[in-house]
Amino acid sequence: MAAKVLLSADLRGIDSHGVARLSGYIRLWEAKRANANPNIRIIHETPSTAVVDGDGGLGLVVAPFAMQIAIDKANNVGTGWVSVQNSNHFGIAGYHALKAVEQNMIGIAMTNASALVAPTFSLERLLGTNPICVAIPAGEEPAFVADLATTTAANGKLEILQRKNQRAPAGWIQDKDGNVSTNPHELKHGGALLPLGGDREHGSHKGYALGAIVDIFSAVLSGANYGPWVPPFPVYVAMPENMPGKGIGHFFGAMRIDAFRPADDFKKNMDNWIKRFRSAKTVEGEDQVLIPGDPERETETDRLQRGIPLWHSVVEDLRLLGEKFEVSLDG
Amino acid sequence: MAAKVLLSADLRGIDSHGVARLSGYIRLWEAKRANANPNIRIIHETPSTAVVDGDGGLGLVVAPFAMQIAIDKANNVGTGWVSVQNSNHFGIAGYHALKAVEQNMIGIAMTNASALVAPTFSLERLLGTNPICVAIPAGEEPAFVADLATTTAANGKLEILQRKNQRAPAGWIQDKDGNVSTNPHELKHGGALLPLGGDREHGSHKGYALGAIVDIFSAVLSGANYGPWVPPFPVYVAMPENMPGKGIGHFFGAMRIDAFRPADDFKKNMDNWIKRFRSAKTVEGEDQVLIPGDPERETETDRLQRGIPLWHSVVEDLRLLGEKFEVSLDG
Repeated sequence: MAAKVLLSADLRGIDSHGVARLSGYIRLWEAKRANANPNIRIIHETPSTAVVDGDGGLGLVVAPFAMQIAIDKANNVGTGWVSVQNSNHFGIAGYHALKAVEQNMIGIAMTNASALVAPTFSLERLLGTNPICVAIPAGEEPAFVADLATTTAANGKLEILQRKNQRAPAGWIQDKDGNVSTNPHELKHGGALLPLGGDREHGSHKGYALGAIVDIFSAVLSGANYGPWVPPFPVYVAMPENMPGKGIGHFFGAMRIDAFRPADDFKKNMDNWIKRFRSAKTVEGEDQVLIPGDPERETETDRLQRGIPLWHSVVEDLRLLGEKFEVSLDG
Repeated sequence: MAAKVLLSADLRGIDSHGVARLSGYIRLWEAKRANANPNIRIIHETPSTAVVDGDGGLGLVVAPFAMQIAIDKANNVGTGWVSVQNSNHFGIAGYHALKAVEQNMIGIAMTNASALVAPTFSLERLLGTNPICVAIPAGEEPAFVADLATTTAANGKLEILQRKNQRAPAGWIQDKDGNVSTNPHELKHGGALLPLGGDREHGSHKGYALGAIVDIFSAVLSGANYGPWVPPFPVYVAMPENMPGKGIGHFFGAMRIDAFRPADDFKKNMDNWIKRFRSAKTVEGEDQVLIPGDPERETETDRLQRGIPLWHSVVEDLRLLGEKFEVSLDG
């Protein structure tokens, strides 16, 4: 299951969340910051809601369990909503949300993460990149899949600039004194990512509010850690003090389409929506207005045929892991 | 009821959505684009969902009806989700979402609106400013209320610049050819508002995706009009051709806090969240990191004491309405 989620990230072009992270997950086990044999269970529920305790397991395993509960509840009463405590990083939100689409449901997945983002006017990093995915089925057209970090740019985009040693656009990052920075390595020196919008004049208070909503739904509703207390992914970063909850938090939703209107009517109108947007007149230099999910799906189609390109450092990392656990990479 | 919703906008400082709009609503009645005696009713439901037909009534009346259904369903099964067709503009989203907070629930309200916004790469206006409000109860602290248009700047902000004849910041608007514009009157000449993010490099595809989600939840789920087919508010603007649905659409949600964890535990942690963010170190020149809802609440406190300032043109408009309907403004 965990392997499936990681592979799905690589196929969809979100390389920062794919097999490149495998060694990081294993270090979490080794440092006893993750539980290899978790007893994942519901600790509270109503007909349309549940809170799941992930027992310190990897989010890659906890999240599919929780999403399935949301889907089961949607089958029973129309919608299902599950908040998760005591979990760990869950890979890409899109993988989990798309599980609902397979069942003719709208799928929603979000997670908090360790603090890299400074809210509007803040010098301190208080929020993670806190992604939201909303996946909506269509008819003939492929599903609408909006999978977005609530920052101007996801941390993965910054990692790519770091590897290539390129500058970041203004509006992505601030330095430790709160000034605009274009240095992709700024986070190592006390800098921070910026919420979607970039600055107050361009609506960064909205990106901050969206990241905050993800934090509260994922962690304050479930009893996980929130804000600056979310445990870090790299094991060499010390755990925060006075943590108010357990592990990191996620939030999942599933809404049955036919709890609102017949699925065929809905899908016909979704196709109409998608076709109208895709055929809109474009600004000079652009071929087409994209539908959320288009870029990732194109990458997936391409990579299923031609394979997944991996950085040398990632291959070397996987080779070392293979040796350590006596697994052959050629198998 | 309608008067309460409008007054709430004025008190909270969202002047563009207050009594200044009263004459616009009345013109909708006169042009037979709104129904003064609607038969608002549920046309489909499950234990946690409903679709409401607003029968062409004002959103100011339809929305409270629909929000109450969401609250009732949350009381029964933990959460309630209501999509609305055949409605009209509903005032400020915050008013409706806060109704749930009064019941120890998280409240969610969103609406689509007539197309003023060009998606990323589009020359055409295909989405409204499509606001989302999420209101979350706290304990000693006031509620967290994120009420945001999914554009860089709401249309109301543009109207203020128009009245003052000031330029808009780059990133709010494009002209009819898709170039950056700072002219707040650009929308009269074929220009468009831009999604939150402003341009692709700064994440406008995320703002576009959020506006699209609001459109789909509000209208494709309910059977209302979506995208470029949403009927315009000003009666002098012609109705779109080949409309695929009925009226405009809204979407409401209510989640009972104790469907997840005891309300007292939740509120204690919300207070902790709010206090930590409000006490964060700030960038130079700023006093405090704000909590979503702070600015509107400060305005409300001030205006409840000192009254609501109105533009001369708005007062004159109300005076004329008073004469027409033989209502005294002094009453």
